[in-house]
Amino acid sequence: MNLVKQKTDQAISILNELDIDIWLTYVRKTSEIHDPSLYFLMEDSWLTWQTVLLITKSGKKIAICGRYDVTNLEKIGVYDTIIGYDESIKTDLIKVLDEIDPSSIAINYSIDNVAADGLTHGMWLRLNKLLEGTPYLERLVSSEKLLAALRGRKTELEINKIKKAVEISENGHKKVTEFIKLEMSEEDIEKMLLKFTKEKGVTVSYPPLIHVGATTSIGHGKASSDIKVKRGDLINVDYGVFFEGYASDLQRMNYILREGEIMPPKEVVRAFETVIRAITTSAEKLKPGVYGWEVDKIARDIVIKEGYKEFMHALGHQIGRNVHDSGCLLGPKWEKYGNSPLMLVEENQAFTLELHVYVENHGYCSIEEDVLVTKDGCEFLSVRQLELSLIRL
Amino acid sequence: MNLVKQKTDQAISILNELDIDIWLTYVRKTSEIHDPSLYFLMEDSWLTWQTVLLITKSGKKIAICGRYDVTNLEKIGVYDTIIGYDESIKTDLIKVLDEIDPSSIAINYSIDNVAADGLTHGMWLRLNKLLEGTPYLERLVSSEKLLAALRGRKTELEINKIKKAVEISENGHKKVTEFIKLEMSEEDIEKMLLKFTKEKGVTVSYPPLIHVGATTSIGHGKASSDIKVKRGDLINVDYGVFFEGYASDLQRMNYILREGEIMPPKEVVRAFETVIRAITTSAEKLKPGVYGWEVDKIARDIVIKEGYKEFMHALGHQIGRNVHDSGCLLGPKWEKYGNSPLMLVEENQAFTLELHVYVENHGYCSIEEDVLVTKDGCEFLSVRQLELSLIRL
Repeated sequence: MNLVKQKTDQAISILNELDIDIWLTYVRKTSEIHDPSLYFLMEDSWLTWQTVLLITKSGKKIAICGRYDVTNLEKIGVYDTIIGYDESIKTDLIKVLDEIDPSSIAINYSIDNVAADGLTHGMWLRLNKLLEGTPYLERLVSSEKLLAALRGRKTELEINKIKKAVEISENGHKKVTEFIKLEMSEEDIEKMLLKFTKEKGVTVSYPPLIHVGATTSIGHGKASSDIKVKRGDLINVDYGVFFEGYASDLQRMNYILREGEIMPPKEVVRAFETVIRAITTSAEKLKPGVYGWEVDKIARDIVIKEGYKEFMHALGHQIGRNVHDSGCLLGPKWEKYGNSPLMLVEENQAFTLELHVYVENHGYCSIEEDVLVTKDGCEFLSVRQLELSLIRL
Repeated sequence: MNLVKQKTDQAISILNELDIDIWLTYVRKTSEIHDPSLYFLMEDSWLTWQTVLLITKSGKKIAICGRYDVTNLEKIGVYDTIIGYDESIKTDLIKVLDEIDPSSIAINYSIDNVAADGLTHGMWLRLNKLLEGTPYLERLVSSEKLLAALRGRKTELEINKIKKAVEISENGHKKVTEFIKLEMSEEDIEKMLLKFTKEKGVTVSYPPLIHVGATTSIGHGKASSDIKVKRGDLINVDYGVFFEGYASDLQRMNYILREGEIMPPKEVVRAFETVIRAITTSAEKLKPGVYGWEVDKIARDIVIKEGYKEFMHALGHQIGRNVHDSGCLLGPKWEKYGNSPLMLVEENQAFTLELHVYVENHGYCSIEEDVLVTKDGCEFLSVRQLELSLIRL
């Protein structure tokens, strides 16, 4: 069964669970603005004119599209009814809605969940205009719950793609460990990883982040050509790939031993162990039915209790069609995260677990693992890094 | 000067022309949903948290972004002020607006222009929440006029990129003419073009459309593996590429001579000549200050007068950062095109001129050229196809 068939079937079962009559995705020129829901509604191709894709609680899959897009939608083999129009979508849309007479219509807008927010404001206004004078205008609801479930709950096909993406990232990280030389710049490491990614026939899920030593720029900054590997440096690499549209996201740590050093300095060891313990302890609590913020708090409390500066990001985001997938977030209740930390963890969601502390004079100490929520806990999709990789150069 | 610098400077001058105080672009997780305006506001990188990019009439360029995105925005070298926040964008945004006290704030939503409609409905609601209780809520206007001008009026840097994209497409079309053999399928031709595109180090601006003979599926359908080249077929190929982010879009025609044939049949010649004449005549009328629909009507009238079925699409769309670029459209006043055919043509806009007629038993006869509007007319960016390419196999 293909993925679009699998996910649209899953959408039907979620519509029943949430008691929503139809899910209506309204898009135009998808090469210009791409509603993230389209990943589950069609294969990788483009729609030119205004198109409505409808999934109903009763199991119908209907597309209304510009005449010249009909063949493309037919070839997906998922929609039972495909209606092509020439001048305006209005007549066909109203006709289809009249036949179903839905009492609730989920559309893709969401204040908090970017992946459920594919309807632009102009298209919202347009939809209001199209539905003017019909009873449907007052039956519009947000699809955010539907989409959080649909994106979050991975099917076996999706899990296997993520596992493959994780495996490729792990090999990339191993390559970094072998590749590092003194005087190599952050940019050199980035270039090697980009080359590796290309050779594997995949794409990065995010521009690789390379953090070398104490002077690196932390966060989403680009790799520097001036910052170079030297002894005593902590080297952090954040690298993930997309495999057939599904992302991995992993961070690994290396330490460059100083001359005569057998072990890293105590403060480096303590930092690394704190990060590992925070991941282990929070992973033990991660299971269906807990709130996202609860899991975040466990790791955050450990870091703060150890006297480190609090990390100013969430402990874990979902991964899937995007490297930062939306829905339930293992994060603190900060305004910028909206309601996502207040959502419940569900089975078959894939999360990252990631956090960092900073070690004066050595650098950024950060690990990120990928996990899958199981029936009563979680399993690691990545082979965990439990020991700091020590490099003698 | 880099493109972002050039386009943001151009935005300042358009803000002055339209007397709008500021242009405010509000985005989040741009890897998930990408506001098309970002092409002109930053380089190809991603913003993770809610970000506001502000361009003011008085010439200021201000960014307010999540702490970890600061470095990325700094590296673009275009924003004078970059403010990083941790928990919420609200305080900094209100502070910046209070300092400017703009009487009009252009934001990216548009009923008719997809390229000016990058603000999602959820972000619109969020912006309303952020600005609640401030005077700014009532000062929001659509940026569609600003963006139509900014996207439409190509700078020299942009024109050169389009010219290069046109040249690569033309070479692809030449390759098709050399490549065609009897019994070759539409899909074979498509594959060859995709390979050619990859070798040139570019990407297609649209999946190539291959129309072989009378049984082809017209429009945006995928190439068929069953429909194969035979004598007497008209072969139409619609193929464009992106060169450094800028698109070309060209259609070329070939005819496979039948045994003993020196010239194609009369009805094929008449169809081809009608298409060519419609392009020539409409190009003669294309200049700054005419309405989009006026140019479309010239070509449409010629086709109808010759007794052919009317083509059910616009004569010409703009090309640029997208292959179907928005703003003024050389199209009929159909509901689905909104106000775009009612807009005026401006200097330095790049358009396609394309139309087709169908020839019973032979196939789809369609040509598409790319043109640039000059001070008092237009110039062809492509070397026009004025003769049907005749292939003897």
